[in-house]
Amino acid sequence: MKAIWKVGKEDPRRVVHSMKVGTALVLVSLLYLLEPLFNGIGKNAMWAVMTVVVVMEFTVGATLCKGLNRGLGTLLAGSLAFLIKYFADAPGRIFQAVYIGVSVFMIGALTTYVRFIPSIKKNYDYGVLIFLLTFNLITVSSYRVNDVWDFAKDRISTIAIGCGLCLLMSILVFPNWSGEELHNNTISRLEGLANSIQVCITGYFYDSAKQATEGDSSENPIYEGYKAVLDSKVKDETLASQASWEPRFSRYCHRTPWHQYTRVGAALRQFSYTVVALHGCLQSEIQTPKSISTLYKDSCIRLGEEVSKVLRELANSIRNKRQFSPQTLSRNLKDALQDLHSALKSQPQLVLGSRNGRTQTPKTAVQAVPHPHPDQKLEEDTKFSFSSVRNGSRGSGCQSVEHSRELTRKVLRPQMSMSAIISLEFSEALPFAAFTSLLVEMVAKLDYVMDEVDELGIIAHFEEFQGDEIVVTCEKPNINKPQNDLPSYGAE
Amino acid sequence: MKAIWKVGKEDPRRVVHSMKVGTALVLVSLLYLLEPLFNGIGKNAMWAVMTVVVVMEFTVGATLCKGLNRGLGTLLAGSLAFLIKYFADAPGRIFQAVYIGVSVFMIGALTTYVRFIPSIKKNYDYGVLIFLLTFNLITVSSYRVNDVWDFAKDRISTIAIGCGLCLLMSILVFPNWSGEELHNNTISRLEGLANSIQVCITGYFYDSAKQATEGDSSENPIYEGYKAVLDSKVKDETLASQASWEPRFSRYCHRTPWHQYTRVGAALRQFSYTVVALHGCLQSEIQTPKSISTLYKDSCIRLGEEVSKVLRELANSIRNKRQFSPQTLSRNLKDALQDLHSALKSQPQLVLGSRNGRTQTPKTAVQAVPHPHPDQKLEEDTKFSFSSVRNGSRGSGCQSVEHSRELTRKVLRPQMSMSAIISLEFSEALPFAAFTSLLVEMVAKLDYVMDEVDELGIIAHFEEFQGDEIVVTCEKPNINKPQNDLPSYGAE
Repeated sequence: MKAIWKVGKEDPRRVVHSMKVGTALVLVSLLYLLEPLFNGIGKNAMWAVMTVVVVMEFTVGATLCKGLNRGLGTLLAGSLAFLIKYFADAPGRIFQAVYIGVSVFMIGALTTYVRFIPSIKKNYDYGVLIFLLTFNLITVSSYRVNDVWDFAKDRISTIAIGCGLCLLMSILVFPNWSGEELHNNTISRLEGLANSIQVCITGYFYDSAKQATEGDSSENPIYEGYKAVLDSKVKDETLASQASWEPRFSRYCHRTPWHQYTRVGAALRQFSYTVVALHGCLQSEIQTPKSISTLYKDSCIRLGEEVSKVLRELANSIRNKRQFSPQTLSRNLKDALQDLHSALKSQPQLVLGSRNGRTQTPKTAVQAVPHPHPDQKLEEDTKFSFSSVRNGSRGSGCQSVEHSRELTRKVLRPQMSMSAIISLEFSEALPFAAFTSLLVEMVAKLDYVMDEVDELGIIAHFEEFQGDEIVVTCEKPNINKPQNDLPSYGAE
Repeated sequence: MKAIWKVGKEDPRRVVHSMKVGTALVLVSLLYLLEPLFNGIGKNAMWAVMTVVVVMEFTVGATLCKGLNRGLGTLLAGSLAFLIKYFADAPGRIFQAVYIGVSVFMIGALTTYVRFIPSIKKNYDYGVLIFLLTFNLITVSSYRVNDVWDFAKDRISTIAIGCGLCLLMSILVFPNWSGEELHNNTISRLEGLANSIQVCITGYFYDSAKQATEGDSSENPIYEGYKAVLDSKVKDETLASQASWEPRFSRYCHRTPWHQYTRVGAALRQFSYTVVALHGCLQSEIQTPKSISTLYKDSCIRLGEEVSKVLRELANSIRNKRQFSPQTLSRNLKDALQDLHSALKSQPQLVLGSRNGRTQTPKTAVQAVPHPHPDQKLEEDTKFSFSSVRNGSRGSGCQSVEHSRELTRKVLRPQMSMSAIISLEFSEALPFAAFTSLLVEMVAKLDYVMDEVDELGIIAHFEEFQGDEIVVTCEKPNINKPQNDLPSYGAE
């Protein structure tokens, strides 16, 4: 009972759709119930009722796909059946039966085999099924029914009436478009990920202890944000293939951009794997002492906010059908990365403190609070992200992430020529290193998502980007001109 | 044309299935073609033909699911239609039409709504559709046809004949079981992952340069191995729900273990994300110099082989329906981890070499070959794997990975109390650090897969494990008794 209520509450369009189906069934029943209509069509009006039951789907695209498949399948089957009957008309009764049997077997086996072909299966599976159904119906009937032509004509016309009614109901009465759903799903996934990241990063610095103990119930805001993305492949592809039947967007461009939405979805899936890993950092039992992580809190939160902002900006770009400026977003991200980098670099006394503490009490080093060397960490993180990003993009068969590598490299290259000697006691600083590593990795993967959304904007002819539309709210608070710092470090 | 050929070559059972459908159609057509049968059943024999077309599916489970759904739906709809007709029988013609219209609307809207409920949608979607179809057919017909009882009886009996024929054909003639397919898929995925890992690790040490340049064509052995796992969720769940209709395994246990197969699949998906990342290391442009990685080659390859061996052992366990010994497999893995750990530790001169090189030429440090400090790397790897593993298991809603953490901790704990001073020039050693990190992470995730397969063995009542069945072929070549080493390190 609760499940029944929940289904309607989750998506009220379901209730509307149920009403629509009920209405369509009543309307099609009138063909049979009303005297004048019944006289026109006859008792084969039942075919129309069956068609409505079978064809009426939740979205316009699905209904169109099924309706056209059913119509075309019936038409083709009718034509083929008559062709075959034409050749079998001459000789005796037994020959005719054998002839029907052979053709039923041949067509049955062939169409069943054809349904295994992926391209047929994807869009025309139902059509082939109906083709086989109608073909058998007409061919077998032709053995005993003489006016098989009338029979076929009735079937085709009643199916056409049923399909027409379904299409009218779907398109005119509160239509649900598959394309729109795909569009909205993409937007809500982008925003869900943005929320996840923000809650996750804030949680890491403010109440990671609380998070770890509360367990599943408190995870919901984070988990809810990314769970829809992880296994979105089949859903996206179904919606995209249904949407490709819908007569929208065709005014704008030659190819509808639904395929590109699935590519955005694939990029988001790759991105979401990093969010899952970040969530894992939050739940790890071994946590970096607050004293350490607090030092980098602001920069990390800022970077997380920038990432969320980019995701929201992408969501808005898709929602408003307006292109975004990859340069502006990348610049902000780069600034935030630079900020984190500066923060990590600006605490050199940590290294000394750690080393002193160690040499005095080598045996209790596990209990001692270790201090990470900031540069090393960031350098490590970046390099780690290089490899991870490459695998991400390669895994899904996509091209280079040139831009992001360039971005991260630009920020971090100068450090490579810096040498220093540090102590090794990483144990408690490492969770934080993994956390920052994932943050940087996330930035690199985000770039790949940006590329795909950019591509979508071009294919779908989104409005051109207007420079003043994006309000850059995130100001760099304290950047120590790192370009000037670097040579001095190199000479250290 | 090529696609048509490929479909049959990929899976010859498809050709057989096509023949089966053709044969079933011919057999059911005989009901209409043969005089004595036709006299018995009448022209409603067409319903049986239609049933065969619609119900006959590739696997026994799917056919059973559809057949039973169709049968039950028809039966229930017939009963309900008669109940409703019973109440509407008395008054005038117009009232009757209105009554029929109202009931068509009510039942239409209700059943459409019910189809949105997830538990109904999963197993009974087709049944509800047929229920609606038959209900409308009988109710609407009852307005003009007087012998609606005969009509309903014919429909039910012909559908029963059609379903029965389909079931006989599916079960008796070259049956394809969904459960068997799920079983085989799980085995082949385990083996695919095992191959991926082996090719990947060997490739990393022997021809990573070649791999990087050859691009997509040479990736196939690795990519082929894991791609089937990544998006297996929907396929697994469909097969499991079809398999739950199949009358197998019910002799052994109260609950069929198909649900557990999907859990093994989920664990494998989590595991495969690490393999994807490992593959990424192979493709990274920045590679650790051969001089460094060669030192740890044997240990890494051994660990990779152990992981592959465990996966193959799990595959064999499922294939032979024989339980495996988690202890033995864990011990081998632990030995291999220990081996890698020893190898990383046994090259201490690297640290000195690196530091000397650095202090002499601080400005050319980027060109100099950097040497990783082994302990630090492994320590880092382990800690990294802790967090990743936790997130993996949490992401899929599963419980603790106690065992693996215990395992990795046991091996690596002693190091934590060790202190050392090393140089910082990580740049080129880091890709290798990421690689080893992923290897260790993989071991931890593997444990989660082992848990699920173990659980499967218990639920499905696999044969008990026989101590001598597993041949431990992998001998430890040069383990320096690390248990004895550790106290001395702690006192260092």
